Amino acid sequence: MSHRIPVTVLGATGVVGQRFVRRLADHPLFRIEHLAASDRSAGKRYREACAWRLDGEPYGGLGDQVMGEGAPEHTLSPVVFSALDTGPATELEPAFARAGALVFSNASAFRMAPEVPLLVPEVNPEHLELLKVQRTHHGWSGGIVTNANCTATVLVMALAPLHAAFGVEAVLMTSMQAVSGAGYPGVPSLDILGNVIPFIRNEEPKVEEEIPKMLGRFAGRTVTPADLAVSALCHRVPVLEGHTEAVSVRLRGNPTLEDVRAAWLDWHPEPQHLGLPSAPAVPIRLHDEEDRPQVRRDVELDDGMSIHIGRLRACPVLGVKFALLGHNTERGAAGGSILNAELAHAKGYLR
Amino acid sequence: MSHRIPVTVLGATGVVGQRFVRRLADHPLFRIEHLAASDRSAGKRYREACAWRLDGEPYGGLGDQVMGEGAPEHTLSPVVFSALDTGPATELEPAFARAGALVFSNASAFRMAPEVPLLVPEVNPEHLELLKVQRTHHGWSGGIVTNANCTATVLVMALAPLHAAFGVEAVLMTSMQAVSGAGYPGVPSLDILGNVIPFIRNEEPKVEEEIPKMLGRFAGRTVTPADLAVSALCHRVPVLEGHTEAVSVRLRGNPTLEDVRAAWLDWHPEPQHLGLPSAPAVPIRLHDEEDRPQVRRDVELDDGMSIHIGRLRACPVLGVKFALLGHNTERGAAGGSILNAELAHAKGYLR
Amino acid sequence: MSHRIPVTVLGATGVVGQRFVRRLADHPLFRIEHLAASDRSAGKRYREACAWRLDGEPYGGLGDQVMGEGAPEHTLSPVVFSALDTGPATELEPAFARAGALVFSNASAFRMAPEVPLLVPEVNPEHLELLKVQRTHHGWSGGIVTNANCTATVLVMALAPLHAAFGVEAVLMTSMQAVSGAGYPGVPSLDILGNVIPFIRNEEPKVEEEIPKMLGRFAGRTVTPADLAVSALCHRVPVLEGHTEAVSVRLRGNPTLEDVRAAWLDWHPEPQHLGLPSAPAVPIRLHDEEDRPQVRRDVELDDGMSIHIGRLRACPVLGVKFALLGHNTERGAAGGSILNAELAHAKGYLR
Amino acid sequence: MSHRIPVTVLGATGVVGQRFVRRLADHPLFRIEHLAASDRSAGKRYREACAWRLDGEPYGGLGDQVMGEGAPEHTLSPVVFSALDTGPATELEPAFARAGALVFSNASAFRMAPEVPLLVPEVNPEHLELLKVQRTHHGWSGGIVTNANCTATVLVMALAPLHAAFGVEAVLMTSMQAVSGAGYPGVPSLDILGNVIPFIRNEEPKVEEEIPKMLGRFAGRTVTPADLAVSALCHRVPVLEGHTEAVSVRLRGNPTLEDVRAAWLDWHPEPQHLGLPSAPAVPIRLHDEEDRPQVRRDVELDDGMSIHIGRLRACPVLGVKFALLGHNTERGAAGGSILNAELAHAKGYLR
Repeated sequence: MSHRIPVTVLGATGVVGQRFVRRLADHPLFRIEHLAASDRSAGKRYREACAWRLDGEPYGGLGDQVMGEGAPEHTLSPVVFSALDTGPATELEPAFARAGALVFSNASAFRMAPEVPLLVPEVNPEHLELLKVQRTHHGWSGGIVTNANCTATVLVMALAPLHAAFGVEAVLMTSMQAVSGAGYPGVPSLDILGNVIPFIRNEEPKVEEEIPKMLGRFAGRTVTPADLAVSALCHRVPVLEGHTEAVSVRLRGNPTLEDVRAAWLDWHPEPQHLGLPSAPAVPIRLHDEEDRPQVRRDVELDDGMSIHIGRLRACPVLGVKFALLGHNTERGAAGGSILNAELAHAKGYLR
Repeated sequence: MSHRIPVTVLGATGVVGQRFVRRLADHPLFRIEHLAASDRSAGKRYREACAWRLDGEPYGGLGDQVMGEGAPEHTLSPVVFSALDTGPATELEPAFARAGALVFSNASAFRMAPEVPLLVPEVNPEHLELLKVQRTHHGWSGGIVTNANCTATVLVMALAPLHAAFGVEAVLMTSMQAVSGAGYPGVPSLDILGNVIPFIRNEEPKVEEEIPKMLGRFAGRTVTPADLAVSALCHRVPVLEGHTEAVSVRLRGNPTLEDVRAAWLDWHPEPQHLGLPSAPAVPIRLHDEEDRPQVRRDVELDDGMSIHIGRLRACPVLGVKFALLGHNTERGAAGGSILNAELAHAKGYLR
Repeated sequence: MSHRIPVTVLGATGVVGQRFVRRLADHPLFRIEHLAASDRSAGKRYREACAWRLDGEPYGGLGDQVMGEGAPEHTLSPVVFSALDTGPATELEPAFARAGALVFSNASAFRMAPEVPLLVPEVNPEHLELLKVQRTHHGWSGGIVTNANCTATVLVMALAPLHAAFGVEAVLMTSMQAVSGAGYPGVPSLDILGNVIPFIRNEEPKVEEEIPKMLGRFAGRTVTPADLAVSALCHRVPVLEGHTEAVSVRLRGNPTLEDVRAAWLDWHPEPQHLGLPSAPAVPIRLHDEEDRPQVRRDVELDDGMSIHIGRLRACPVLGVKFALLGHNTERGAAGGSILNAELAHAKGYLR
Repeated sequence: MSHRIPVTVLGATGVVGQRFVRRLADHPLFRIEHLAASDRSAGKRYREACAWRLDGEPYGGLGDQVMGEGAPEHTLSPVVFSALDTGPATELEPAFARAGALVFSNASAFRMAPEVPLLVPEVNPEHLELLKVQRTHHGWSGGIVTNANCTATVLVMALAPLHAAFGVEAVLMTSMQAVSGAGYPGVPSLDILGNVIPFIRNEEPKVEEEIPKMLGRFAGRTVTPADLAVSALCHRVPVLEGHTEAVSVRLRGNPTLEDVRAAWLDWHPEPQHLGLPSAPAVPIRLHDEEDRPQVRRDVELDDGMSIHIGRLRACPVLGVKFALLGHNTERGAAGGSILNAELAHAKGYLR
């Protein structure tokens, strides 16, 4: 393990940052070199700067590590995982890329930048080549790779095999999202106990624009967004972890439900071929019980890296509908970024 | 108040039955003559047979009333409100109709029978004339009037003004439904705490078939279902009362959002003209705040008889989408049945 | 109503402030003259400064009222209700008292000051005379009257009749407190969904010191605390409104359970004699069902101004134990302060 | 593993039964020979008879095992684990004991029988010798060993070191109990969402009588209950797994808080010495954070077999108070019974 690649975690004290730390604590490819968060964390021990909220070993065993300043002069590693908010990410991620780091970001700041890959390794691994465009375009020695919005990540994994097999013309997705998606302190209990909130700021536009980019075709230098209509209706519900999505799709050629099911079963994407450490053996778990998947009972399977599909049935309006579930802070955040870095490693972008 | 019409409540001990009793306790047109539930309740006082679960005066002030047997020989009144389960309703409701009662039923047993009105007074008051068909067809001196599934009731109230103004071609509705919809004991807490269940038995087909019937045209003797596609995706969430619905619609002629809004604002249906006692002054409450309606905060307004709409916006797939909310055990059950009886009274079906 | 006494509400935008506004909206003795909160609210309309979170008419009908600055030069009324946090209360409440206002405060800043009444009108109305001591001592033309911590208020109402009838030697109280007690945004949903937190900062000491003061004897110029041991064990639970308390007491003379019950039933305190507008007809509601009181089902009765007791039984350790329930933001906050002001009015402290 | 002792699980389809199956699926000493539940399960495959509700491998890998009849003629194994309800347990457990099985029961039927050990291996391992009394007394070749009520089990583990070090004179315990304690379907969601129920049938008497028996002295043939007063105030709260307990104790000799803490730290009971497979390395986890233990965050540690103590502080009434937490369906049910069987094995009661 002595040759593991040193990494920096930016935003290490937050909900997603802690999941980065926990996942990286005994990762076969990476080891944590620096932890950083806001300026007022610098110089503190991680255990002092952070209210650890996860199961398992507190602070990922790094409670005594002294936190650095979140700036490339201080905490530069070859790989940087960013759990920063949009504001700091806008400023810091390019600074780290310029300084030579490959930044794997969970922030939304650069997701829609044309030269930045919006990457889900099972879905669009070839988009990673945009890193070369970045280097040419910005003159960076490093680069930025983003993962998608958590809701969009779960959805695109369900859509990708259907888009490959049939072509998706339209998708309408209603989400019921966990409170962890809002970070900490996040959603006040006075707002969500016994309630459903039919609004999450900026969430619907993100899903509606990120899905076509991820399903888009990479042609040498640019990604041409896929030509499909996406409508998202997003809700917050009193659930801790995991986003439930109700999905209807219109597919080209009117495939049967059995065809749709086969498309998911026959999906063997690249991370699984490559055996990436964080890739789940089966990326899509199909449930046969009439009342599954259920978020509280299913979402932690496979360390939260697989998605769950059930209740496949005909939709009188769009053709096909199904229940979908995925882990917003693992597959949709920390775990997704780390899988991106693993893909970059396998493809030779990291030495 | 001495000339109020005597009524019987069947299924008086359950969640919906209690709401019937509470609403009828000081109703200007009706007074409770008989209470009945299962055979083992007969002869008990209401307070002994019933675990009262509502706010306000326990047992609607009828705690000492002795319960009767749920059979027309024993508990026949001119008006019968039925909160029975499907099984008993299938047998008992026709028996009461034959014996001369006008049965206002919350059960699903006869909703799709062609000669039975599936009535929401704001939406299809003219369907009440099917009572005459029943009398001819069955030779009943009474009749059966049903209200719709709770989820369908809320939805059809939002659709009716749009169907009248533009024509609805397709509607896709994802529900997040309260546990009270399953009655008592109903949903086990082990199933729903911190969870979302993407399945409610028989719920989706009910919505999909009841909406076209309610929006259908009555032509003398039959109702021709409206020609629109309906897709329902139903979920149970940890909420006590009130169903949240995320709705997308495709309307004829591509009206603007302002046109849609105007259609709701300009809706002045018959129960409000007639001043029926249980009709809310404003049947559709439009919310302007970006994060409303919210079930815990809004659903009890107007005694649960109005519906709530908010977040009207363009849908990239179907054209128009919005957030919808209504009270499942009031407007969608007890209150709805009583409003049906009030309409029947105003139309001269009750002496 | 034209002769109602003008009042100012300080901290009007918060959870408790909104309850002040709602209760005062059509109060027979008081009318709202000024609304104030932090400096950045001054000059805004109430509807702009405040995210209204209560049922009923939004903003208590005062949505268009322009907010003032929270300082006696700007917003002085004869009566001031304070929903301020401790910090601002420490500074502002004496300033208003000096300027001539009678301040009825929900803050903890001056509760334990020897010259300040810690008032629950049913329990210690005579403590109000401390106002005269304040005037002598501080030279104020106004004064400060505090209500107790919400948990202590509910508890002292249950204890007062027992203390009067028998003498309470010791009380051990375990609370299960609603999230509204922490204000807004207050308790993060990530902390409390599906959880119990066995700690509320400063809560246990407040209960342990406020109870003896409230039960203490007023002898002309000072209150001698009652000689009883109080132990509080405080918990936060996922409940919206209302504190549940499990109470064991050791009483002098070993009264029977029937004696204890009689002491509560025979309690007819002064606010009920005086017919104060906010006094509940029956201040203690005794429940006979084996599983009541229950917070969600019982706490809103009597506008939250009565307390609820049930499950009276022998305690093998201290003698008597029972279940207790009260409304933390009504009886334990806004409603309690207003009742204090009503008592002051009835006693001639307000002209 | 071929020499593992065959066992039967009675009541295998319920909430606790499933935990037995999961824990026994790869147990080093035991292997499941028979599964049984009610008569109508007999002959079905386990996956058909059981709605599996736990994480991990469904049905403990035994989904295809055909269930037997719950009677010693059909499903006798040397060891029987009983997750039966009280009624069936009263009849079946002695039948199995008579037929030669050592029955480790989670039912309450025989807990207070003088010849039946009420066993928590860390607390009273010597009580196991009552098995010899049973054999003499009943002529059984097998026997019955019970574990305690879940709430009492957690409490007695906290008390045992204090009783050994100082002597406990009195204990007052208020519980906030998870819904899983009521089995499935158990507590209706309509009762517990956003609520606290201050009553659990039979729970308080069980705690109050079981604690003295478990802390009692075994003298050859009988257990003399410990001489201490126990008062329990039991509540149901909207939590899935894990009982939170607020505890106050009066100890002999007024030890300091540091003494109390040392008594817990210095506790090294027999299961840990013996290295029993299900014994947690540290049976009492002491928490230093001011707001821990918290049930949702802490209770799954050590597979739910340790208990958690925090917030040790002075109690103005009884001397010492603290926060306590334990897993009701693991340590307080399935895991506790299996640990009992492991102790019996280590002591030579099983061949």
